[in-house]
Amino acid sequence: MASLRFDDPLFATYAVAATLMILKVIAMSWLTVVRMIRANGGFRSPEDLRRTPLNPHPSPAQLEPNDGVERIRRIQLNDLENIPFFLAAGFLYILTSPSLLAARLLLYGYVVSRLLHFLAYLTKQTHEVRAALWTAGSLILLYLTGRSLLAALGI
Amino acid sequence: MASLRFDDPLFATYAVAATLMILKVIAMSWLTVVRMIRANGGFRSPEDLRRTPLNPHPSPAQLEPNDGVERIRRIQLNDLENIPFFLAAGFLYILTSPSLLAARLLLYGYVVSRLLHFLAYLTKQTHEVRAALWTAGSLILLYLTGRSLLAALGI
Amino acid sequence: MASLRFDDPLFATYAVAATLMILKVIAMSWLTVVRMIRANGGFRSPEDLRRTPLNPHPSPAQLEPNDGVERIRRIQLNDLENIPFFLAAGFLYILTSPSLLAARLLLYGYVVSRLLHFLAYLTKQTHEVRAALWTAGSLILLYLTGRSLLAALGI
Repeated sequence: MASLRFDDPLFATYAVAATLMILKVIAMSWLTVVRMIRANGGFRSPEDLRRTPLNPHPSPAQLEPNDGVERIRRIQLNDLENIPFFLAAGFLYILTSPSLLAARLLLYGYVVSRLLHFLAYLTKQTHEVRAALWTAGSLILLYLTGRSLLAALGI
Repeated sequence: MASLRFDDPLFATYAVAATLMILKVIAMSWLTVVRMIRANGGFRSPEDLRRTPLNPHPSPAQLEPNDGVERIRRIQLNDLENIPFFLAAGFLYILTSPSLLAARLLLYGYVVSRLLHFLAYLTKQTHEVRAALWTAGSLILLYLTGRSLLAALGI
Repeated sequence: MASLRFDDPLFATYAVAATLMILKVIAMSWLTVVRMIRANGGFRSPEDLRRTPLNPHPSPAQLEPNDGVERIRRIQLNDLENIPFFLAAGFLYILTSPSLLAARLLLYGYVVSRLLHFLAYLTKQTHEVRAALWTAGSLILLYLTGRSLLAALGI
């Protein structure tokens, strides 16, 4: 069984993949902030229209959906539908004692698929490109989960 | 303390419940895709209206909310509000060394409550039915979390 | 390395912080329910307009967004963008064997930042107050994740 030690290559593989994915999600929050500042809008709460030092000239238009901000929010929602489950499934998967090569291909492959999905979504590629990259990640997630379920059932 | 070994019945109970819940969430993503294909709509991004081999006759109506697609999205959002926290709370709970019977009742009970909640939501049962099933799951989650907090406080 | 035993102060620190955050998220779901009952509205599904013992006088207005309900939903969405990742990053962080003092400051500091963020959002403080509290939590999360990544890379 994989230990939970960072000097165990299997656990380190998981920890690298997991932390990169968490950093990716955090980056989406910050990117939302950056785009709201740049657009001076895309806000969501009525109180965001109060006059403050950071918003000296409030206007109702600031509460309207902003394309650039909404795009990052859609990307982030897609992350929320996928990454928390990768964090759990990847953890269970390394406890099944896979080969280091398989673990690296699957976990780092997942990270790459999500980063490319982000780039495709950000740069407005066609639905097909985005869907193909999402599918690659989802199939890896399905495998990690299914493999762990079989191990738990003793199969 | 429960070990993190799949041949430990307590850990295996957690791993089975956790992977079933992850598979459930993945299934929601695929069901959304299936319904978008069947409805030929329910899309969310402007670039999804580009003419491509998979969307040869794009139309602005494809970006309008589609009832069938939105229903699965609401179910999935409800999953996001619940299942990631079950994955963490269930893990902490088995580390409190509960009896195997209690662990099975609670963790498998949670899984059953969420699957029934899904069926009730999908088949448009009344709010009461859906709420009762959600409540059952939420109370189990509350217990798992509270029990782990007490263990962590040494109570 | 931290053990996964509740009598290990490092693990207990994580378990207390994690369970408090999970309880916070569960509370948001229940608060949404309370506000929907009080407003007799803020529902989302067409079937919620059926006449039932709990909704004897249904009206289409019950499906319109309700300010008080939507506020809790926004708070909960913000939780979903943050707390699942804290649960994973905090777990990896305590496996890096930090000092107990550092762990307590960071993990309990995160909990406090999220509880204050909730209060600021609930009581409609200005965007600046809310943003400052969110930022404090996000920076802690960034540190926990970055520290774990460095440990996994052997740096």
